[in-house]
Amino acid sequence: MMVVSHDTAAETRPTALGACGSGAVPQALARVKAFIEPRLEQALQLSGEAAPRLLEAMRYSLLAPGKRLRPALVLWAAGACSPTGAQRSSPEIWETAAGAAVAVEMIHAYSLVHDDLPAMDDDDLRRGRPTCHRAYDEATAILCGDALQALAFETLVGSLPAATAARGCRVLAQAAGAEALVGGQSDDLAAERGWLDPSSAPEGREAQIAWMERIHRRKTGALFRAALTLGGLAAGADDRLLAALDDYGRAFGLAFQISDDLLDTEGNEATTGKRVGKDAERGKLTYPTVLGPADSRRRAEALAAEAGAMLADLPSSADDLRHLASWIVTRDH
Amino acid sequence: MMVVSHDTAAETRPTALGACGSGAVPQALARVKAFIEPRLEQALQLSGEAAPRLLEAMRYSLLAPGKRLRPALVLWAAGACSPTGAQRSSPEIWETAAGAAVAVEMIHAYSLVHDDLPAMDDDDLRRGRPTCHRAYDEATAILCGDALQALAFETLVGSLPAATAARGCRVLAQAAGAEALVGGQSDDLAAERGWLDPSSAPEGREAQIAWMERIHRRKTGALFRAALTLGGLAAGADDRLLAALDDYGRAFGLAFQISDDLLDTEGNEATTGKRVGKDAERGKLTYPTVLGPADSRRRAEALAAEAGAMLADLPSSADDLRHLASWIVTRDH
Repeated sequence: MMVVSHDTAAETRPTALGACGSGAVPQALARVKAFIEPRLEQALQLSGEAAPRLLEAMRYSLLAPGKRLRPALVLWAAGACSPTGAQRSSPEIWETAAGAAVAVEMIHAYSLVHDDLPAMDDDDLRRGRPTCHRAYDEATAILCGDALQALAFETLVGSLPAATAARGCRVLAQAAGAEALVGGQSDDLAAERGWLDPSSAPEGREAQIAWMERIHRRKTGALFRAALTLGGLAAGADDRLLAALDDYGRAFGLAFQISDDLLDTEGNEATTGKRVGKDAERGKLTYPTVLGPADSRRRAEALAAEAGAMLADLPSSADDLRHLASWIVTRDH
Repeated sequence: MMVVSHDTAAETRPTALGACGSGAVPQALARVKAFIEPRLEQALQLSGEAAPRLLEAMRYSLLAPGKRLRPALVLWAAGACSPTGAQRSSPEIWETAAGAAVAVEMIHAYSLVHDDLPAMDDDDLRRGRPTCHRAYDEATAILCGDALQALAFETLVGSLPAATAARGCRVLAQAAGAEALVGGQSDDLAAERGWLDPSSAPEGREAQIAWMERIHRRKTGALFRAALTLGGLAAGADDRLLAALDDYGRAFGLAFQISDDLLDTEGNEATTGKRVGKDAERGKLTYPTVLGPADSRRRAEALAAEAGAMLADLPSSADDLRHLASWIVTRDH
């Protein structure tokens, strides 16, 4: 059993979540937004050496409206691992992880800018606003993503003590690289465009589920897990806490993806702020098309419960993460 | 005066370079190639999680023929700062800086892949081979660049002790970012495409020279300087040695750029492996068009001499860098 030495209240925390717990998530996310958005803005206060048009595009993309889910995972993981767990959202605890939270959001923002490009998903709108290459131009959007990626690493290593910075940099680079985020996106495009080696194209329901999980584990899951690890590292978590956060992240990431697929099928365009039915148009494999909506929902709920269970040995300071797992599969946007 | 404690032979080294010294550069670069290319290949031995098409494109781009000038700067800077200066190209000294040399080459390779894209410089050929997006496709080329950038940071921090790794990561990120490489490229495109604020468009010869220097300092110079700093850091150089390398890099970078512009005007396509006259076609400001070829050549030679002078207090182990500065302005490719 995992022992959390710094919080003896661990055994008295509630083990099941009521509607009240998960209902608190939007408010908790609003606190994250209020904390992180001025820091995103500050991280873009670059010198006069930055090209003006490029910097504008970086601001447009990084400061675009968003849930700030990845920064929330960083900050909440730091809170969950902090020795003063009771004050899990105190400015001091979050401050140690703020640079990591900004860095993860930069990687996320850059990946959206590049995914939206004409050569990739060719999207004109994101959350109701023109995508970066529509608001500026393609060249600027490519460079904007490139510069945000570099700035993520600069921000991360500048915000942590040297030993943690190097480890954190490796975690972020792996999550952003060919074996994770970019690799998942590449395989996803390959499937969509018929570039797959026929022997590796998934046939049959089980193979299709395995294929989707392999895509999503890399394309979205890896950055969630890196966010949690970076929050833990910033708070000085030991390997057992880091392992618990990672197990949580693995289940949470898949629950998130299934619920995202469900929103794409069943969601309301006004609520989600995205064009609905996009995946189906592109002939993409999604959980609802492979498993059906009801089974997909059951699977997402089971994964959310599994994610929560992974935190069983963490103190009440992990409640933000517990609530988030329940909320992610019931949200409508 | 700078004192180099570990090499008392410093005062006896030659202060001027003969043709013999600079003639040794192609051989010295060949030794760098033989050392670094197997390591570039090894750095791309990724797990099965990497997408196959993406990994192929990364290999195609990173292992493409090249001078390996940036790895040479890393390794030669490490040799120049190493306590056992006499054996400046011994495997042990180079080994400590090998990860940094690989990382810098990855950033360079990624920037070429993105610069060649249709939305950017729209080039079909690079060194006589199809560019990445022609050999594969645009989406893969975008992702290939993205993944090479992430892998550069992963490789760098994995190759250095934690304290140096964090500092090195910051150096590389700054050189690759909005205030350097990407910023220079963005301003260069802005000038070419008429996106500049009219008040910042350079008019008159002095303003045009200042503009070009500001572009090149960021677009090519910053990564040269980062390469030198990383080599120095890997070898444990103190701040005075690092400053000398940086001063060298500043003059070297500009000498390199002027000679590159001259090759684009006067060079031979068969020797340079590039299409000649490309800059003029695009109406780009170049040193030969602004200063004339003779003045450009004189300026490049003065900068090369200046670069060499910056190393005056370094021991003979810095000779590779000294020879390189002379060679760069006389090369024909």
